Amino acid sequence: MNQEQMIETLTNLIENKKIKDLREFLQSINSADFPSIIENVNEDKIIIIYRLLSKEKAAEVFVELNHDDQEKLINCLTDTEIKNVMNEIYMDDAVDLIEEMPSNVVKRILTNTKPANRKIINELLKYPDDTAGTIMTTEFIDLKEDMTVDEAFNYIKQKALKKETVYNCYVVAADRKLLGIIDIKDLLAADRKEIIKDIMNTNVVKVNTLEDQEEVTRIFDKYNYVALPVVDQENRLVGIITIDDAIDVIQEETLEDFEKMAAITPDDGDSYLKTSVFVHAKKRIVWLLVLMVSAMFTGQVIENFESAISALPLLVAFIPMLMDTGGNCGSQTSTLIIRGLAMKELSTKDIFKVIWKEIRVSVIVGIVLAIANSIRIMIQYNDLKIAFVVGVTLVCTVIMAKLIGCILPMIAKKLKLDPAIMAAPLITTIVDTLSVLVFFNISTIVFQI
Amino acid sequence: MNQEQMIETLTNLIENKKIKDLREFLQSINSADFPSIIENVNEDKIIIIYRLLSKEKAAEVFVELNHDDQEKLINCLTDTEIKNVMNEIYMDDAVDLIEEMPSNVVKRILTNTKPANRKIINELLKYPDDTAGTIMTTEFIDLKEDMTVDEAFNYIKQKALKKETVYNCYVVAADRKLLGIIDIKDLLAADRKEIIKDIMNTNVVKVNTLEDQEEVTRIFDKYNYVALPVVDQENRLVGIITIDDAIDVIQEETLEDFEKMAAITPDDGDSYLKTSVFVHAKKRIVWLLVLMVSAMFTGQVIENFESAISALPLLVAFIPMLMDTGGNCGSQTSTLIIRGLAMKELSTKDIFKVIWKEIRVSVIVGIVLAIANSIRIMIQYNDLKIAFVVGVTLVCTVIMAKLIGCILPMIAKKLKLDPAIMAAPLITTIVDTLSVLVFFNISTIVFQI
Repeated sequence: MNQEQMIETLTNLIENKKIKDLREFLQSINSADFPSIIENVNEDKIIIIYRLLSKEKAAEVFVELNHDDQEKLINCLTDTEIKNVMNEIYMDDAVDLIEEMPSNVVKRILTNTKPANRKIINELLKYPDDTAGTIMTTEFIDLKEDMTVDEAFNYIKQKALKKETVYNCYVVAADRKLLGIIDIKDLLAADRKEIIKDIMNTNVVKVNTLEDQEEVTRIFDKYNYVALPVVDQENRLVGIITIDDAIDVIQEETLEDFEKMAAITPDDGDSYLKTSVFVHAKKRIVWLLVLMVSAMFTGQVIENFESAISALPLLVAFIPMLMDTGGNCGSQTSTLIIRGLAMKELSTKDIFKVIWKEIRVSVIVGIVLAIANSIRIMIQYNDLKIAFVVGVTLVCTVIMAKLIGCILPMIAKKLKLDPAIMAAPLITTIVDTLSVLVFFNISTIVFQI
Repeated sequence: MNQEQMIETLTNLIENKKIKDLREFLQSINSADFPSIIENVNEDKIIIIYRLLSKEKAAEVFVELNHDDQEKLINCLTDTEIKNVMNEIYMDDAVDLIEEMPSNVVKRILTNTKPANRKIINELLKYPDDTAGTIMTTEFIDLKEDMTVDEAFNYIKQKALKKETVYNCYVVAADRKLLGIIDIKDLLAADRKEIIKDIMNTNVVKVNTLEDQEEVTRIFDKYNYVALPVVDQENRLVGIITIDDAIDVIQEETLEDFEKMAAITPDDGDSYLKTSVFVHAKKRIVWLLVLMVSAMFTGQVIENFESAISALPLLVAFIPMLMDTGGNCGSQTSTLIIRGLAMKELSTKDIFKVIWKEIRVSVIVGIVLAIANSIRIMIQYNDLKIAFVVGVTLVCTVIMAKLIGCILPMIAKKLKLDPAIMAAPLITTIVDTLSVLVFFNISTIVFQI
């Protein structure tokens, strides 16, 4: 059934007041499909739909909604209904919710959260931004090392539905120190009488609460886990990060990289359409001003060659092509390097290998472009001197652009800055100045102007 | 233990011929850590290390290696050893391997694969590129609907270690049609006597073998699953895709987007350092030539205003700043739109909302930039007319750039082209021509030249 059919069925059932069928139908819809349904039914129907969901489903659906819809919904719910939601949702989702809601809503949420959970939420809120602590949840299966497999299964049976994942189970000592990990696959394959201690894996890959969330995503990528244990400074297990949250971080960080590389100041947050005009303008204006100032240097260089331009105004016609080609060459290289660094395929110690590779690539690319250009100049102007000057400048520009494009991101990385700021826009303005300088210097020599 | 310590311990154990300790130590290392270890020990030690691994571990480690090291290793292994690897690895990894190896190695691999698996591999190789069929594996837990939970556990116990995942189990009819799905969590929480039919979820999210792999990643992202069943045209379950493979696809497609947006022709394949100089040059040169030709139009426009330039050569000094600012404004917008379309936060039907938003953003941005520029011109040249001409051109350029930056990717999407080709480089050359046109036209009017 596609979305339109779902909405039609829903609307029909509501209008004909077929409450029993409606309840059954709602229960059969996947929670992840609700946000787009809710966007497409009338507001007065939303609360009817929501109240017909089972307690567990209501909480699941609530977590899937975007923050605006969550806020709207909370304002319609009774205190008891909010209590139900807060009892059912996982702690990482609770923290997300509290971080995004306005303070009056937060107050109402926390009043309707049981004290034990409120304490956990407050603890989780204390972790610095972008650390493992902020994305972990506290609902996991903790086994004891002297349990038998049979006892472990009984324990899991009682707890499973309240835990975010049972795929990985964690073995902890009495003082909560993390001793080992068992994949549910190994537990299922084990003999019922075996002792947990004997089948657990003690070689545990784990992260500290303060670990950077980007490092967390790299560990997920490397080890192909579905969950990762998070420990505090004393190696006590305090939470787990599940892979769905890691994927969210990957998407978020990728968007940030795209934005930085396009000279946009990232701010966490909303999608394109939900971001206001002023926030959009603010995100873009800082870098535009910086780059505008640096582009003025190119203008200054040109001004210094005013007499050459007066003598041979045709020269100016080649400036856009030289500037654009330099910019494009630089951004090709910087994109590859920034991406390689981000994916840890490259490290700063590779800098000489990279430079050597870029030099060879740029010689090939530069010569091909210069030949193409010379042919065009000979056809259009039949002027060998101009063809020569433009060709030599092109080769120099490509080499400079590619070298700057690989060296600057590497230096940024070495200085512990984000390499993504050394992307196309900044590289372009630097290469512009250099290529114009080379062009006019060669021109003044060749044409003796 | 960090990597250096691991390598030191390994080297010591090998040199002192402590085979028993070495074997134990190797078994304790995570398979995902082997590739970086193998890169850092002498080649003659690699085969010693590899031969000491248990059969299962040897296969796990083999899968983690990069294709070059896999090839080297295969050339050192005996037929029996290759047989062991091919018996142990999952079918999706086998297909990956065969796709990447040179034909003589493929022949040796297939000779040492048992006929049943060879048949599966051949089936999997037939799926078109970038479809669900090419990334799925055929090892999953299939339950029958009339099993009890207890019977299901017994079945899983025997099969678990040979299956890629037990986290999701699939219920199939005698004709292999997919009837339902059970998360292992629900199975663990269920009563032993219950019948699978009564606890399975019949509302299954699944994909067809021919579904595009990008769509597969979006389903993973939306529904937070760890595995997704793949069915053929007759709804028969033929495989599953696990989340680690979905993440690989996300990373691969993201890299492709980055490359396309930086005017690089993507080709699947190797990391930056492993790609040869000629492949690098080839990947970059096509777009550079296309963009060079389009940048020549800007040059032609400038040529047409040669007399204006002779009359007022200072005008040329503003061209780089106008070109760069236009390019940057255009790439900011196109990046946001391309990313929004890729993440399905935007669709082509939002085009008017987007245009209206970009107009308002560009008026704000344009005016701020124009004011900043005018101040600078007044300080440096104290020339109100120039300040006026440059200011007006800037506002027009920003508006044009942002409109082109949002409209072109949307049109590409509508025409079922990849919006990523309408990125910074192409937008820049188009905006260049327009801004230079506006600039000289306003100049000739204001200065009457």
